[in-house]
Amino acid sequence: MAPKYAIGVDLGGTKILSAVVDAQGKVIGQAKKSTHAEKGPTAVIKRIEKAMNEAVEAAGVQKDHVEAIGVGAPGVVDSNRGIVVQLTNLPGWHNVPLARVLQEWRAVPVVVSNDVRVAAVGEHRVGAGQGVHSMVAVFVGTGIGGGVILNDRLWTGWRASAGEVGHMIVLADGPYAVGSGIRGSIEALASRSAIERELRAGLAAGRRSILPELLKEKNSDTITSGILAKAVSRNDPLTIEVLRRAAYYLGLHASALINAFDPEMLIYGGGVIEALGDWLLPQICEVARQHAINKVNLNQVKIVTAKLGDQAGVIGAALMAFDLLKDQRNGNRASA
Amino acid sequence: MAPKYAIGVDLGGTKILSAVVDAQGKVIGQAKKSTHAEKGPTAVIKRIEKAMNEAVEAAGVQKDHVEAIGVGAPGVVDSNRGIVVQLTNLPGWHNVPLARVLQEWRAVPVVVSNDVRVAAVGEHRVGAGQGVHSMVAVFVGTGIGGGVILNDRLWTGWRASAGEVGHMIVLADGPYAVGSGIRGSIEALASRSAIERELRAGLAAGRRSILPELLKEKNSDTITSGILAKAVSRNDPLTIEVLRRAAYYLGLHASALINAFDPEMLIYGGGVIEALGDWLLPQICEVARQHAINKVNLNQVKIVTAKLGDQAGVIGAALMAFDLLKDQRNGNRASA
Repeated sequence: MAPKYAIGVDLGGTKILSAVVDAQGKVIGQAKKSTHAEKGPTAVIKRIEKAMNEAVEAAGVQKDHVEAIGVGAPGVVDSNRGIVVQLTNLPGWHNVPLARVLQEWRAVPVVVSNDVRVAAVGEHRVGAGQGVHSMVAVFVGTGIGGGVILNDRLWTGWRASAGEVGHMIVLADGPYAVGSGIRGSIEALASRSAIERELRAGLAAGRRSILPELLKEKNSDTITSGILAKAVSRNDPLTIEVLRRAAYYLGLHASALINAFDPEMLIYGGGVIEALGDWLLPQICEVARQHAINKVNLNQVKIVTAKLGDQAGVIGAALMAFDLLKDQRNGNRASA
Repeated sequence: MAPKYAIGVDLGGTKILSAVVDAQGKVIGQAKKSTHAEKGPTAVIKRIEKAMNEAVEAAGVQKDHVEAIGVGAPGVVDSNRGIVVQLTNLPGWHNVPLARVLQEWRAVPVVVSNDVRVAAVGEHRVGAGQGVHSMVAVFVGTGIGGGVILNDRLWTGWRASAGEVGHMIVLADGPYAVGSGIRGSIEALASRSAIERELRAGLAAGRRSILPELLKEKNSDTITSGILAKAVSRNDPLTIEVLRRAAYYLGLHASALINAFDPEMLIYGGGVIEALGDWLLPQICEVARQHAINKVNLNQVKIVTAKLGDQAGVIGAALMAFDLLKDQRNGNRASA
């Protein structure tokens, strides 16, 4: 019997997405809830279960039809044991046996993985990477994360921490990254928070810009990706200068990924790319081409934007859950 | 019938190494010849054949016992078609069908690959990486090259140019690499030629150093790895300062490799490491530990020196030749 549905969960610092997905990666129904991360793991897990219930309802299916659960979590995850080791923006998450706990919701196989890794799987299987055998996904948002697919499989590495491409250093002794504290990593240079840091430094230095006006207009404390896009469309010189520099660093980083992995495709996603991909990607490509060693290769590697938006995580998580189910059934069959 | 012997060839800009190797990676006999690269491909191929003849003789075996040939070449190689696309320090090598040409020496399967990639295979199979399933080898010599082993196989990438880890950028807008012209790559920062560039700049700026004395003593125009080791052992402040900086960059580079690949082991080889590994490696490890994202992981990743010295290439090439032989026999069997 072929599996029917899996539930994918994308656990974020501010919101939880959940979706009922079929084996082809099609979203049947979904739900979104705020995380209330400050209330700690037990409360957050209740929210996850609520999101799953609502997704099942929205999909119009029975809970019994959910045959596997996949979760993407923003931090270090021990996928082999289904344990969330530590999360970046969710306090109190230390060695939480999430797979086991979620089996109380429904006793089916549960896979827990890193949030950007599952998004990479989503893009590979049903997004921009369909039909591609090796690729690296780079998600540029508040931070920068990624995932590596080699020979059609997520490369998880020796200790399940492969694909931490956001922490690769591009500018030795450069600025500190907010999240990791690593200096000169691509996250410290080209994430939304790095871009905001540079823009605020420019404003503090008295540079003229429409940003203060846009922030007031949007009633926002944060220079969001949307505000960045607006500033570019209105030719704000400070924003354009800072973003050009970020694109340059992303291009150098892309060349490192190409030189190391020689993938068939690089996929760029995340909030900054969703808002500004059309403007940023040609710049990233250009710099990457100038800095990769095998020029022949470089003219052939595809550098594209992600397709699934914020659904990449839930879809990827659900598809990984289907994979686990299949593996377990094959294992059971083999041992039967 | 199990294969008997393969010949491994390590084609270099100044010398050609050739060895008869058994299926366990044991060198039975070997030969070394100068390349005379300036005479062009046809003459160099004659030298390769001569080196192979001498290796067979040194091994005390019959040419008929050689069942496969493996070659490592310093540049871009199309392994699927056995074509040397372009070599760095050997003029005239453009699209040379080396595999086909060497079959005139003996009509057996020939594999042609990149020189540092075959050395990585050698270290993995019978050197420092024995029993390790995923590793990155970094060879620090006049340039910097490497190879990546994932799931016990050489990861060659989409266009056979994976593992070009020497060209990963660590210091955006840094100095130019001599070979590639790429700015701020690890090769531009920590190869022997980069180290020599920094030392000569220091000397030109009037820094006191025993290097001029050592160069005279050794009657050398080049600051060799041996001279570097000598200067360190005599506590030359300029040399120590420049090498500490190189080690720092190698440590940042190591953290990028760990964050991206999450390998079980990093292996360091090449002339600079052979001369100074005991002194450099602890510094590289320390910096890598400070900069990798998953600290748990980092305390477990093994960072070690290569074991096979300049035999890594011939052994790795021969073992890849055995692999090709096995694949072809299995293929033949499957289609029979």
